[in-house]
Amino acid sequence: MTQTTANEAPSETGEASSREWDADSLGRRFEEVRGHTEALAAPLSPEDQTVQSMPDVSPTKWHRAHVTWFFETFLLAEAEQGFAPFQDKYWFLFNSYYETLGPRYARPDRGLVTRPGAHEVGDYRANVDARVRELVDTLDGGSLEKLTPIIELGFHHEQQHQELLLMDIKHVLSRNPLQPVYAGSPVERCEPDRLGWVEVEGGLVEVGHEGPGFSFDNEMPRHRQWLEPYRLADRLATNGEWLAFIADGGYERHELWLSDGWAKVRGEGWSAPLYWSEHDGVWFEHTLNGTWPVNPGLPVAHVSFYEAEAFATWSGKRLPTEAEWEHAVVTDGQGGQHGRDQQVVGNLADGGSFHPRPAQPAPAGSRLRQVHGDCWEWTSSAYHPYPGFHPPEGAIGEYNGKFMSNQMVLRGGCALTPAGHARASYRNFFPHGARWALSGVRLADGGAPA
Amino acid sequence: MTQTTANEAPSETGEASSREWDADSLGRRFEEVRGHTEALAAPLSPEDQTVQSMPDVSPTKWHRAHVTWFFETFLLAEAEQGFAPFQDKYWFLFNSYYETLGPRYARPDRGLVTRPGAHEVGDYRANVDARVRELVDTLDGGSLEKLTPIIELGFHHEQQHQELLLMDIKHVLSRNPLQPVYAGSPVERCEPDRLGWVEVEGGLVEVGHEGPGFSFDNEMPRHRQWLEPYRLADRLATNGEWLAFIADGGYERHELWLSDGWAKVRGEGWSAPLYWSEHDGVWFEHTLNGTWPVNPGLPVAHVSFYEAEAFATWSGKRLPTEAEWEHAVVTDGQGGQHGRDQQVVGNLADGGSFHPRPAQPAPAGSRLRQVHGDCWEWTSSAYHPYPGFHPPEGAIGEYNGKFMSNQMVLRGGCALTPAGHARASYRNFFPHGARWALSGVRLADGGAPA
Amino acid sequence: MTQTTANEAPSETGEASSREWDADSLGRRFEEVRGHTEALAAPLSPEDQTVQSMPDVSPTKWHRAHVTWFFETFLLAEAEQGFAPFQDKYWFLFNSYYETLGPRYARPDRGLVTRPGAHEVGDYRANVDARVRELVDTLDGGSLEKLTPIIELGFHHEQQHQELLLMDIKHVLSRNPLQPVYAGSPVERCEPDRLGWVEVEGGLVEVGHEGPGFSFDNEMPRHRQWLEPYRLADRLATNGEWLAFIADGGYERHELWLSDGWAKVRGEGWSAPLYWSEHDGVWFEHTLNGTWPVNPGLPVAHVSFYEAEAFATWSGKRLPTEAEWEHAVVTDGQGGQHGRDQQVVGNLADGGSFHPRPAQPAPAGSRLRQVHGDCWEWTSSAYHPYPGFHPPEGAIGEYNGKFMSNQMVLRGGCALTPAGHARASYRNFFPHGARWALSGVRLADGGAPA
Amino acid sequence: MTQTTANEAPSETGEASSREWDADSLGRRFEEVRGHTEALAAPLSPEDQTVQSMPDVSPTKWHRAHVTWFFETFLLAEAEQGFAPFQDKYWFLFNSYYETLGPRYARPDRGLVTRPGAHEVGDYRANVDARVRELVDTLDGGSLEKLTPIIELGFHHEQQHQELLLMDIKHVLSRNPLQPVYAGSPVERCEPDRLGWVEVEGGLVEVGHEGPGFSFDNEMPRHRQWLEPYRLADRLATNGEWLAFIADGGYERHELWLSDGWAKVRGEGWSAPLYWSEHDGVWFEHTLNGTWPVNPGLPVAHVSFYEAEAFATWSGKRLPTEAEWEHAVVTDGQGGQHGRDQQVVGNLADGGSFHPRPAQPAPAGSRLRQVHGDCWEWTSSAYHPYPGFHPPEGAIGEYNGKFMSNQMVLRGGCALTPAGHARASYRNFFPHGARWALSGVRLADGGAPA
Ligand SMILES: [Fe+3]
Ligand SMILES: [Fe+3]
Ligand SMILES: [Fe+3]
Ligand SMILES: [Fe+3]
Repeated sequence: MTQTTANEAPSETGEASSREWDADSLGRRFEEVRGHTEALAAPLSPEDQTVQSMPDVSPTKWHRAHVTWFFETFLLAEAEQGFAPFQDKYWFLFNSYYETLGPRYARPDRGLVTRPGAHEVGDYRANVDARVRELVDTLDGGSLEKLTPIIELGFHHEQQHQELLLMDIKHVLSRNPLQPVYAGSPVERCEPDRLGWVEVEGGLVEVGHEGPGFSFDNEMPRHRQWLEPYRLADRLATNGEWLAFIADGGYERHELWLSDGWAKVRGEGWSAPLYWSEHDGVWFEHTLNGTWPVNPGLPVAHVSFYEAEAFATWSGKRLPTEAEWEHAVVTDGQGGQHGRDQQVVGNLADGGSFHPRPAQPAPAGSRLRQVHGDCWEWTSSAYHPYPGFHPPEGAIGEYNGKFMSNQMVLRGGCALTPAGHARASYRNFFPHGARWALSGVRLADGGAPA
Repeated sequence: MTQTTANEAPSETGEASSREWDADSLGRRFEEVRGHTEALAAPLSPEDQTVQSMPDVSPTKWHRAHVTWFFETFLLAEAEQGFAPFQDKYWFLFNSYYETLGPRYARPDRGLVTRPGAHEVGDYRANVDARVRELVDTLDGGSLEKLTPIIELGFHHEQQHQELLLMDIKHVLSRNPLQPVYAGSPVERCEPDRLGWVEVEGGLVEVGHEGPGFSFDNEMPRHRQWLEPYRLADRLATNGEWLAFIADGGYERHELWLSDGWAKVRGEGWSAPLYWSEHDGVWFEHTLNGTWPVNPGLPVAHVSFYEAEAFATWSGKRLPTEAEWEHAVVTDGQGGQHGRDQQVVGNLADGGSFHPRPAQPAPAGSRLRQVHGDCWEWTSSAYHPYPGFHPPEGAIGEYNGKFMSNQMVLRGGCALTPAGHARASYRNFFPHGARWALSGVRLADGGAPA
Repeated sequence: MTQTTANEAPSETGEASSREWDADSLGRRFEEVRGHTEALAAPLSPEDQTVQSMPDVSPTKWHRAHVTWFFETFLLAEAEQGFAPFQDKYWFLFNSYYETLGPRYARPDRGLVTRPGAHEVGDYRANVDARVRELVDTLDGGSLEKLTPIIELGFHHEQQHQELLLMDIKHVLSRNPLQPVYAGSPVERCEPDRLGWVEVEGGLVEVGHEGPGFSFDNEMPRHRQWLEPYRLADRLATNGEWLAFIADGGYERHELWLSDGWAKVRGEGWSAPLYWSEHDGVWFEHTLNGTWPVNPGLPVAHVSFYEAEAFATWSGKRLPTEAEWEHAVVTDGQGGQHGRDQQVVGNLADGGSFHPRPAQPAPAGSRLRQVHGDCWEWTSSAYHPYPGFHPPEGAIGEYNGKFMSNQMVLRGGCALTPAGHARASYRNFFPHGARWALSGVRLADGGAPA
Repeated sequence: MTQTTANEAPSETGEASSREWDADSLGRRFEEVRGHTEALAAPLSPEDQTVQSMPDVSPTKWHRAHVTWFFETFLLAEAEQGFAPFQDKYWFLFNSYYETLGPRYARPDRGLVTRPGAHEVGDYRANVDARVRELVDTLDGGSLEKLTPIIELGFHHEQQHQELLLMDIKHVLSRNPLQPVYAGSPVERCEPDRLGWVEVEGGLVEVGHEGPGFSFDNEMPRHRQWLEPYRLADRLATNGEWLAFIADGGYERHELWLSDGWAKVRGEGWSAPLYWSEHDGVWFEHTLNGTWPVNPGLPVAHVSFYEAEAFATWSGKRLPTEAEWEHAVVTDGQGGQHGRDQQVVGNLADGGSFHPRPAQPAPAGSRLRQVHGDCWEWTSSAYHPYPGFHPPEGAIGEYNGKFMSNQMVLRGGCALTPAGHARASYRNFFPHGARWALSGVRLADGGAPA
């Protein structure tokens, strides 16, 4: 693989935007995205949709209402003639974290709110849907163009919450001794296949989003970074490898762990990934497909940064930086035109598996496998602003920027990520100890100064 | 009022039990009690029935399932031919606190269980209902007589949970900024009427249950106790009096409070009873009838023991002991034949008010008002075993005895107590700082050695 | 033993006070008490005197300063001509819990204050000592008489803190792996001797302090109480019996425990009394005499109310009420003239053992052994006000009354209690789970209605 | 300033080590370092030396013992003939965090250990001092050379603890309402002088230690990094500027803060730097020189990363990265031969001020002021391993590497840092919310892609 900074790629130059929105396409995309949320919630009872199983989790019906509130607040309240809120108190109930918009219902208490119920949230959604479509249909071209960025942000925001909805309901259902199934069925037991390595030359590369196509503000600005030559595993680490890690005392050997991670291991009694439990010597895994014996051939999932890091140390390897990851993916031909929200290939939520699958061959012409989908991949990079980053003005400036501390970057998307929401420059982030995202491990090596 | 120890009352001697159960009456009572639970849950949505708003609270559907589990575990599992549980895991899910019966789902996590849903709990109830009726109808007389005590205990157990269900859903709904209404409507604003005092002679009195009629084990054995002459307020303390307490710095003057109570006032920021909130200088109260301005003529409700005690100190009075309360009520002719579960008069849950009402005249021939119903009345007595108390053998021995520490006794029943579940010897109990029971204050005076 | 209410005892009638204070005797007693505190602190280094090993514990030098502050605040500030505090900030630093006197240094932070050091606290003591003696010597008789109660309260207050000082330093030293010795040496290994029972008739008895001689306000008023016939063990429970309790699964059988106690056992991992630790199958006990193998013949010490209650249940017995205890001791001739602070006999701190000893024969004419000294004896009585109790006006009213909730009464004194500070009516009190007082168990039986 | 990567500097090439240790120089340096620790502890009483005012703080006498334990464990136990520990239990008591060496006394409980006292710790120090000197004097040349790295590490370890000792005792004394003084006196009130900016060209630069001279492992390996052109403030931010930040609502405007920082502001009630307190409208600052009105001309100190970041945002600027800081300092001629532990110039602990001072002119030929000493400077860089970093084998590998998460890098040293312990490549690190280090702010700007 020859090192090529992505912005030298010919496809980058002189092209029109890959996506040119008009009222019609915006309206169709709006219905698509909104409908997908409802489809994800459909298998869930009113009771399922109500519960918050830990402070990080939000109830399904809260997600359904909050993404609706997002359109109501950032679009309708700005642009609708004679705007009046659907329900006064919803402003308060469904604001997630925007301090600029005033007080909010306390996040850890979202699961205490029984009304509006799942059905009434449906009414709220229908009302806002109708008003947004009306607005889009009646705006003149100039106004529409001005509002398109916030509408498009609304699409991606709702997609983020589609993934969160699945992550969260997975956690909710995990607390039930009846072991409920959300959807789908497990793959048959299989063994890990051979792990290969992809060499990357590095040098003075560019990372980050630029040009047409959607990205969040945190993916910009595109900037230069120096990378020594390195290599990446061509697939994710597997349950089989994780079982070997456990068997070799992985959770009992302090020398493999960061000090904070070791404190978690001892304090929380970690002895396996989240959702694993041992019965009569056999490890089982709670999944959205039900609870099944751990399948060695599947990617390991629901490990924290600390566990990923300890596993890498045990493996004699390390985690990649986010720049290494992005540069390798782009040069491997799997970033598309960088930053364009073209569809990427992988085991994403549209496939309906709702769980990682064994590694498939890389796309034609590429070498890295499982790049998009399956599991988010922990990197060794802190989630910090890119050089020159400035959040936008106003409430929307709180979307990403204020969370840039105490978190680590993950890359690649997972089996719960909506298609169209994964791209090479996408920066996901969670605290070091978080395990309820569908997070896994891709090993890296090299990268040291000669 | 002449002091008369209750067991000297003529009605006590030589009478048959006030209640003689047979298959028919047991069956009818069973349907009655079971049906009442479902009627109380009827206004509540599946979402309402799912939530646990604090560790002390249980979800409505949990209550509905747990009382069913009680009959299944203590009756069917003992006596049903070829017993098999409705669902294996329900044994684990719906055991409240019986260590003898093995591990249980953690109490503070009851609100995390979305399935069985409200409807499926209904299926569970219907199944157990049918099996219990079948059992009662087919048992021979001797077996029935042997099982009657546990069936009768099941009735009273379910009634206890009927009150808890209402207390708990009141707390759940209180966390909702939309201020939902459970049922009923408020009384019109009124002022407190004159508070009178009832003198009681005391002496060597008897308290506790004895003879026929149902009581819990903690009401026994009946025993002697010495009381100096004392007097009791003839009605409950009112919101009007509480507003005066607040206005006089009640929540700001340490000298009125026990040290532990003062720590609560400061630590929790108490400035009024639970469910009161101030808006633009007006106090509002969340009730099951909705949220309304505090009505001065109504009994104050949802105060802790600490608040009740501080209020009594501020009033220059004190709280009664439980013996003083019971003895006064019995000698006032409102205990019935002590220990018999005859109906007593008062604003209980069957009246459908679901909230305390202004004091009505005392029953004919009596002087104490609001004795049963309206609000539980804090006493100055620790919830300890009566002299000679021994809990029964087996799991059922955990029903009451093990909770006899760190709690204070309340007497009299409240507006959420089912009719038939209030009696003079009944000992309710809560920790000093608990406020989510419908608890109020009756003042006492005297009782000191001459 | 014939039941006799103590106030019928002939020695009670017509006697002058057992203690008539004048300037000379007050001055001598003052020096005695003050000197004893310094003697207790003498073996402790400046470092020892500084540390607070848990929020309940206070540093030695804090105790030394606080009792000095007590005389400065309640005596000198009231009566000294031209009073000026030794150091302004000491008012703030050494006020323990008197809200009436304004803000205080936070109790859990007492161990953070390094200055004044142990030596400077000595200077403070010397200064106040001189001023108090000067005051006592120069007051006219009327003024002296008026101040005598507060001076006498100061003596008893300082004695209370002498015991606390020892309790607290025992805890401090227990946290040191070097196992330091405070003083004294252990008794030789011995076995428990036979436990006998003392029958008490009961009836309408009187308890509480009355008449001349010192008592705290919480020992009054003397009042009547009804007791059914009962019996008390003639000695304390021993380590040998406790080892049998442990061996029989005492800390593993939920059915022996109150629910709150069981929560402590599980939550805190209790498996033996405080200060016991197991090494290679042998139990050791940290004492002020050093760390030694548990001696079966000694009274068990440092158990909580929960443990005492579970042990009693395991023994098929119960704990006595405080009225039973006091009445039995007085009728056994070991209360002296009730309420007079005459010396009682027992293994108290003046003996210098600083640890309980094996039971000795009862005093001539008595049958109960180990009544005073050795270990405080848990009762089954909540620490509540006696009927008719009212705390005094002013700051001194906070001395006892405000602590009358969530605590249980202990009786009898212990090996750390100063001679002259134990009496039949004395009410000590600690929360149910507290273990750092030198608390043990005397079993009771009977007392149930016939 | 022309960008020059430090390793191109001529002084770097072909030179011998700046420090060639022999037995004599090692011995002299050992005495120097060890003596300095004792000199710092000299003004502190035994009580001062005992207290741990929060879990992060260690008692003075613990520091004195722990650095001694370090030599005993890593040097004497390895190399001394017939080694026996001074005291068996000290191995347990004075191990800080080396899991490899077995269990340790719990860190948050270090303040509970009263013995060994301050004087006995002195005995321990004297014993180990003598044995180390004996060892150094008697080793043959080869052995000495082999041990020199660990001895030298011991010097730098002890210097780190010299700074910690001062940080910690400052916190201890801050909890005392008597406002004790450690040493020194404050500078006179002055105003901030003009803040200038130093431009740096950037490019492909090198950072990290290489070559002779001491560094910790975390300063290596030296590696390349790309920097866009940027500029740094030529002095630290001042109290005067911080007062303006406060006056402008700095602690009340959420939009200035990272989300985690805002949670701290609200949760901890931050309204000013640690050690500031307001009395009658005047801000005072607790310092080791006593408590004085905040001096506008002095560098602001004891701010967290969150505050530094919010202040930078408010200023329209940002914090520098650690690479920007190091590269600028080296190219400004203040790094010396990079990585050599030559003396750098600044207000360090040897000056005896024990507090930051107003900015002085830069050294001749340099433009950046206050580079070394005064205050540690927060950077925007997470404390992560440099590319290719591997901790050494064995217990000593725990020295730095395991702490590389959840912390931010600070650069430059402070007024509590020993002379000889500051250098351009030195990486200090603390959690985002830590404030008890002497940490301040140097603003940066630029650095964005063109
Ligand atoms: Fe959102
Ligand atoms: Fe129950
Ligand atoms: Fe005191
Ligand atoms: Fe260290």
